[in-house]
Amino acid sequence: MRPSIVLFGDSITEESFGEGGWGAYLANHYSRSADVILRGYSGYNTRWAARVLARAVTGIPSASVAAVTVLFGANDASLPTRASAFQYVPLGEYRENLRAICALLRDRWPAAAVILVTPPPVDERGRLRFIGGGGGDGSGLPERTNQATGEYARACVQVAVECGLRVIDIWSRMQMFPGWETSFLRDGLHLTPRGNRLLFEEVVWALGDANLSLEALPADLPLCSDIDPDNAAKYFEEEEEEE
Amino acid sequence: MRPSIVLFGDSITEESFGEGGWGAYLANHYSRSADVILRGYSGYNTRWAARVLARAVTGIPSASVAAVTVLFGANDASLPTRASAFQYVPLGEYRENLRAICALLRDRWPAAAVILVTPPPVDERGRLRFIGGGGGDGSGLPERTNQATGEYARACVQVAVECGLRVIDIWSRMQMFPGWETSFLRDGLHLTPRGNRLLFEEVVWALGDANLSLEALPADLPLCSDIDPDNAAKYFEEEEEEE
Repeated sequence: MRPSIVLFGDSITEESFGEGGWGAYLANHYSRSADVILRGYSGYNTRWAARVLARAVTGIPSASVAAVTVLFGANDASLPTRASAFQYVPLGEYRENLRAICALLRDRWPAAAVILVTPPPVDERGRLRFIGGGGGDGSGLPERTNQATGEYARACVQVAVECGLRVIDIWSRMQMFPGWETSFLRDGLHLTPRGNRLLFEEVVWALGDANLSLEALPADLPLCSDIDPDNAAKYFEEEEEEE
Repeated sequence: MRPSIVLFGDSITEESFGEGGWGAYLANHYSRSADVILRGYSGYNTRWAARVLARAVTGIPSASVAAVTVLFGANDASLPTRASAFQYVPLGEYRENLRAICALLRDRWPAAAVILVTPPPVDERGRLRFIGGGGGDGSGLPERTNQATGEYARACVQVAVECGLRVIDIWSRMQMFPGWETSFLRDGLHLTPRGNRLLFEEVVWALGDANLSLEALPADLPLCSDIDPDNAAKYFEEEEEEE
């Protein structure tokens, strides 16, 4: 049975199989060795995610799950006084919800590597361009700020350290690159193809660290390049006997 | 539990999660309603595929499988006297193997819609450009021809009709468009992004015909756009009670 990698998160996960998306890259990378299972829920914060997690993963064969990425925080960090206030979750509760999500995942899939991912940074000018100069509520201010999202990103890293889990601090990582605002973010929040590529590389690195690199995982069935053209039949007779 | 759509085939399936690939498009299209499970094996013909099928689908929860695409023939149709002869399968055996694959799938997943897909057309000049003017064996001739592949495509359609299955004749469909040789094929055999897009659209149409359109499938968990901002909690209290 192939191992599977579950992607649990908000819109940055839900849209990860779009063109040049990090989820699609991952599925392509592991095309012969692991299944990538998409569980992305646009607009969700950790409060909602914690409550639906058990339902979201119903039917995924537990024995197969080798890793799960958890990417929430972009919605929790919506400012409580602005246009996306209904998605806002206070920082302390975000921390609690993340802990609860990780505990549920560990309970369900004890052998799986849980990889937390911080929300990406926010480009406030990009947000205003996207939602209109009024900020969605006429205030002229964006509904998210990079500073507030940064606090959630730090909390995410802290929870990971405290729980002994791997973490990808994509909030900090992206801001190491000049021009991150537009090269990695298409609307100040969601990822461009380059942003997707960077996140994909970070996830592949973390999976490798969890002994789930392409090299560490067996290929599912003989690779055509390994088949002796003069004796192809033998590779499949053996398969048949094992069934 | 989400329904799943299994993609079983050769390299045209294995690489379908690459950039602009038809499998990734499909996973994105059904991001909130169905899982797309990749079982692509580059270089495989129906002889090998029939023998490994049971192993290939081990661990996929049977109850979830709503549809499966079967795309083989491009390798079976390799000419027996040229560079890819070891992949060649005679036309009569191709037909038998396809029937055996469909019987195995129906036996394993009686409720699933089986969708056969013919091999795409072959652009011989594109093949020669890709493998080099020598044709891989010094003959100066390509290892596949469009005429031979067309015979396998017709056999695939016949098997589908005979077994009462849906079929996508992508061999004929692509050739309806002037310039198909380079607009749909990148190396005379594998698909460009436009070729992937066309195949994706045909698969979505066939899935819709099998009552698996986006509109027919329920979304997994409440959509953010359906949530009343003033009473978000109620959508998730209900979820919790049901667990």
